[in-house]
This record gives sequence, structure tokens and C-alpha cells, in this order.
Amino acid sequence: MESSQDLIIPRGFRAGAVKAGIKPSGGLDLALLAAVGPCAAAGTFTTNRVCAAPVRWCRDHLPAGDIRAVVVNAGNANAATGAQGAMNAARTAELAGEMLGCRPDQVLVASTGVIGHQLPMDRLEEGLKRVSSQLSADPGSFQTAAQAILTTDTRAKVVALQHKGQSGTFTLFGMAKGAAMIGPRMATMLAFLLTDAPVWPNDLQPILSDAVENSFNCVSVEGHTSTNDTVLILSSTAATEPILAGDDLTAFAAMVNSACESLARMMAADGEGSTHLITIDVEGCETREEARTIARTVADSPLVKTAIHGADPNWGRIVSAAGYAGVPFEEAELSLWINGVAVYQAGVPTAFDASSLSAQLRANRDVHFRLVLSRGTDRIRFWTCDLTAEYVRLNADYTT
Amino acid sequence: MESSQDLIIPRGFRAGAVKAGIKPSGGLDLALLAAVGPCAAAGTFTTNRVCAAPVRWCRDHLPAGDIRAVVVNAGNANAATGAQGAMNAARTAELAGEMLGCRPDQVLVASTGVIGHQLPMDRLEEGLKRVSSQLSADPGSFQTAAQAILTTDTRAKVVALQHKGQSGTFTLFGMAKGAAMIGPRMATMLAFLLTDAPVWPNDLQPILSDAVENSFNCVSVEGHTSTNDTVLILSSTAATEPILAGDDLTAFAAMVNSACESLARMMAADGEGSTHLITIDVEGCETREEARTIARTVADSPLVKTAIHGADPNWGRIVSAAGYAGVPFEEAELSLWINGVAVYQAGVPTAFDASSLSAQLRANRDVHFRLVLSRGTDRIRFWTCDLTAEYVRLNADYTT
Repeated sequence: MESSQDLIIPRGFRAGAVKAGIKPSGGLDLALLAAVGPCAAAGTFTTNRVCAAPVRWCRDHLPAGDIRAVVVNAGNANAATGAQGAMNAARTAELAGEMLGCRPDQVLVASTGVIGHQLPMDRLEEGLKRVSSQLSADPGSFQTAAQAILTTDTRAKVVALQHKGQSGTFTLFGMAKGAAMIGPRMATMLAFLLTDAPVWPNDLQPILSDAVENSFNCVSVEGHTSTNDTVLILSSTAATEPILAGDDLTAFAAMVNSACESLARMMAADGEGSTHLITIDVEGCETREEARTIARTVADSPLVKTAIHGADPNWGRIVSAAGYAGVPFEEAELSLWINGVAVYQAGVPTAFDASSLSAQLRANRDVHFRLVLSRGTDRIRFWTCDLTAEYVRLNADYTT
Repeated sequence: MESSQDLIIPRGFRAGAVKAGIKPSGGLDLALLAAVGPCAAAGTFTTNRVCAAPVRWCRDHLPAGDIRAVVVNAGNANAATGAQGAMNAARTAELAGEMLGCRPDQVLVASTGVIGHQLPMDRLEEGLKRVSSQLSADPGSFQTAAQAILTTDTRAKVVALQHKGQSGTFTLFGMAKGAAMIGPRMATMLAFLLTDAPVWPNDLQPILSDAVENSFNCVSVEGHTSTNDTVLILSSTAATEPILAGDDLTAFAAMVNSACESLARMMAADGEGSTHLITIDVEGCETREEARTIARTVADSPLVKTAIHGADPNWGRIVSAAGYAGVPFEEAELSLWINGVAVYQAGVPTAFDASSLSAQLRANRDVHFRLVLSRGTDRIRFWTCDLTAEYVRLNADYTT
């Protein structure tokens, strides 16, 4: 995470966060991101059939050209909450709209936390009043907002990038949360990107969707796709400045990609209870989806994850996970490197120094798998973390 | 497990087991099941693309009408071992054939244990010599064989059933192993069924395949499909007695189903480090495969499994797992009961006594989920276990 001093905030946004009493811990749990004027906005969302009320609300209102704010609460997911949950999401947007002087449909909402409980609307309303009166463009207030959206994350996840283009300098700020129930398919846990680059909603949506495919959709902590996955992007200047095109638009898309990848990597590195960040490169596939399927299957295998936790170069678990991914390769087409060490080549085990590789795994938080097939030229990079007794402890006692 | 005294062994089989020195622990690790005459035999196997040499050997020789023996070793999977591994599997069959006086292709082989290491053929040969000289039809020798095929299992898994039919009395004996790397798709870990019911190979194969679909393919410990999954069935009397047909064949198929279900349930109950056996009924689906997909997704969610470990009736994790299974249901179509308590009805949470349900989960090893949709009439029953810190500990340090 960059320090507050280094954080560059795009023009046209203010942020704030308060302790609204939604989290049982009493910590920061309500963040408000507000724009000075109308924003172009786009989003991507969970594909879970049981999806949260705030996800339905955002989906119904995006892409749009006049978004003014995003309300985010932690401590309660407002998921599996029926018609009452939908009314509470709409009421949240209405309350924020009253306080900020805009319509409810100009306010996006996002929630994270426990599933199946109704939002405490009295506390939420009281918190919204306080946070809307203390909004600030100061980088510190964005840091505080990034803190307020966390649940079991051990650290805030923010990124800020700047680009000098032909049509001026533009800035991209992003923040995210995610430590468990992370197995995104088409979207991910909460991430919010703010920019002062003037980009139409119709350009924002494909740029965001592409970036999400290559970042959040390449992360898994334990493969459990959340009900609340939401990634939003807001541009504060699309209504007032000349719209980006050509090289500048390409550069902007690259920034969005880079920001999403950084946040996705931070999520995997902060996976609940984790002690290792595992980067998985799958190469030589017929299609990118084929590579993703293999990478995800390896990433979600508890046997692979526990082996890495134990600094155990038990490569048989990695190749056997690839083997049940559903991709019809032949064993002799598969090779594997762990941290650059060839352990399995064209279907045959190599003689490698297991104790030296184990010592390396023990000493470093970063681990790298490279799986190479000979089926084609498509590839993917995927991130996950190891599985530890601490993950079990954290999740064996979350609601009670 | 039934005691040795109670165990009824089908006519025509002998068994034995020795410590061959394949397991580092020095325990029993080589079992031999031998028939007095030629057996009708069938098998089902892993669908993993990285499949073990013994799986390939059996697949090449089944179904068959003249099988004489099955050699099983634990401690080494002979998987991902290339051409050398294939030669070692064939050599094992050849050695056993020499000792028993039959052809190599009349001997089936199966292995379980660590992936990627070559079998110690000298020790295996020496062990085969010893075990082939001490074969016995005594129930105790089948118990010992059931012990020798285990790896991290905490107990042997055997079943014996008898049926008095129109054409006489016939017996079915089954034994299995499986405690981790259990996520069968079309087959499962090792299971061996012996019978003296006279059934053709062509009848045995569909009976076995059906039974496996409803038993081993409805179990998951952590979803990692093994390279070595093998279920074999041998009939000792198909060559010499009148072949079963009609009601007797139907009764035999029911016995096979029942034996496979018992062994599958024992596997889930003995999942590595587990403290709960979870039975998942999914009902009201359009197809049985749809029900299986939902059940498997719930069974494989680490968040569901850790919640049950913590005696936490966190039903949001169960419905959200169903939601990402890929079945296109609507939230309002879904209801959930935990141990008979309705917690979510037609997409709406109920007011239930969470602390009483939690106390019940804490006090009992058996847990029951019932997920009901309103899409059709197909259903499935699936078994899994909880995820514990002990599972992590066991698997963080398996090869090194």
C-alpha cells in the first residue's frame, strides 16, 4: 500500500468513512465516495445466482453517464435477504441522494459481510448523515474509505496511477477489499476505481470488463464465488472535458489493467490466513479459457495449497490437479517448473533437489508455478494463496 | 467396520497382506486378492488426464471373463511416472502371474500413495513372494488386506452382504480406502468388490457403473480428483455356475449399490482430519446431473466445510455455494433445511434458533443439509466432511 502522502487522487472526487455500528467489532464500516459533478460509470458483477441486493441495484443502473456517489458498507452483505433487502438497498441510495442533492438512481451501493441478515437501516442512516458532512478530497480520506470497506483483510488495498497524455494528465485511483469467499467468475469482490480521465460510459464498460478478465477473474482464495462481487469505475470529467480517444484511450485502458492487476495481486497476497502468494502461469494452451480452467483448478486444490504451506515441493498434486481440470490434454504434453526448477518434463519426473527447493519455499512468501502444455499459444497468469490452519480457524467461527 | 467373525467371504477367493517396505512407516502395504478359478470382472476408473500406470493397465484388460488376482500396494501411487511406471505395473502383473500360475493379463493391479516416484520393484517382488505363499480364505486375511490398502485412513472400510435368491445364496464382500484426494468423477479411490454370484462381465459392468454413479461419485473430501481412482468387481462363479438373471440379477445389482454406498459413506466419514460427516440431499432439480453439480459445489466449498467444523449454522455460505454451481435457478426457487430446521425458504431467511442449531452441530458428528429447488423432480444424495486444521497439518507435510 502506498502511504497517504504518495497517493494522487483524481480531480472531482471526495471521500469519507465512519463507524456506523454495522460491524460487530465497532470498526470503520461505512464509506462514501462522492463526485462533485455527474460521472460516467461502468461495473462488473458476480455471476452467482444468489446475488446481493446492492448488486441488483447497480446492475439496473449501469452503465450510466450521471452517477454521483457510491455508498459501501462492510459487516453486512445484504445478500439472501429477499424483498426487504432490495428495499434496503434502494433506501440507502435514496438517503444518500437526499444528503448529497441528487436522485437515488445516481447513487450506487455495495455491501460486504455476513450473508442473510437485514441491514440495520437506523444505524446506516445515522452513519450516512455523519459521513456526508465530512467528505474531503484529501488523500487521507480515501485511505480511510479504503479501510472502511475491509472485513477480514489484514491491510487496505489501494493503487494510484498517473499518465501524461496528448490531451493532458489523468489520474486513476483504485481501492479493493477481499480476503475470503474469493473465487470470482466474471467479477470479484469489491473494487472501486475513480479517474479524472474523460471517458464515455460506452468506452469505460469494455475497458473495465477486459481489465477484470485479466485481474480479478484470475484470483482465487478458496474458489467460493461471492454473492456480492462488484467492480465499479467512475470518471469525473466525461461530462465536461473532451473525450479520450486514440492513443490516450489505449493508455487509459492500460492503466485500468495495471490498477486491477495490482489490486487482484494484493487480494491473493492477503488471502485469509495465508503465508504464501502463489503465481500460476499456464502456457501453451489452445485458448485462454482452457489456460484459465487449468490455473483455477490448480489454484483451488486444497492439496496443492496445503503442500505450499508446508514448503513441500509435492509437484504430483499440481500435475494431478491440472489433470482433472477437464482439458483433454495428454500427460506427455505437460511440463512443470516450481520457482524456475524443472520438476516434470513432458510427462516424466526429473531428478531435482527437493530439499533445496523446499528450503526456498520456506524462506520466501512468493511462489511461482509454470505449467506448459504443447497444445497452442494461449496463456494466462493466475494468483492464489496457500491454505493454512489459520484459514480454518478464521472461518470455523465467523457468524456465531 | 464389521468384526472378522461377522465377515462373510464369497466362495472362491483368498487374500493376504504383508509389509513390503513401500510405506515409509513400515506398515502393511501390499495386499493380494486371488481367485481359485477365473473370474468375471469389471471396473471403473479415474477421469483424470494424468492417470496412474495401474489404471491404464486395468483399463486395457477389462471387462474380462478370466481374471485371477488383484495386486494392491499402498505408499506409492505409480502415477506421473512415465514409461518406467507403465513397465513397473506390467512387471507387477507378470510377477504375480508367475507366482499364482496364470498369465500377466489375468492379474489386475492398483496403487495408492505418493505421486511421481517409481515403485521399489525389488521390495515389491520380495513382498509378492511372501504374500502369495500365505493366501487364505479366512475372514481375518481379508481384514488384513483391507488394512494394507490404507494410506492416511484412520480405519479399514469393509462391507459384506448376503442374499438368498431363487438360484441360491450369494455373497458380496467389499473393501475400500480413501481419506484425501477424494473428488471422484466417474470413479473413485480404491474399492474392491468380490462376489460368488455368477454374473457375466457384460452384466457386471453396467451394474458396477450404476452403483459407482450413486455412491463413490457422490463423495468428495476436498474435490481433488485422484490419478488412481479404481473400483473393481470380481465374480468367482460366472465360469462354472448358471448365470444370474431376472429377479436375482436385480437383487444382485441392489447389493452392489448398497455395498458401494456403505463404503462411500465410510470414506466421507473418514475424510482426513474430519470431525463431521455431512450428508447433502439436493431435490427438485431438472436432472440428476444438475442436482449433483449443486451438491458437489456445496460439498467442495471450504467456507461451508469450515463453518460446519465450527458448529456454525452459517447457511448463507451453503446457499451462496449453490448459487455459483452454474445451475441457472432463481433465488426464490431455493429452500434450505439444516438438520431438519428450515433456515431459508423460497429465497427468504427464516427466524430460527441459531444457538440451538449450533449446539446440535457441536454435539453430533452427523450433519444433514436438504436443498430443495422447484425446477423438477430429480434429486441426489451426496456425502462430504468438514475442513479442519488437522487436514491442513496432515497435508502440509506429506512427502518431505
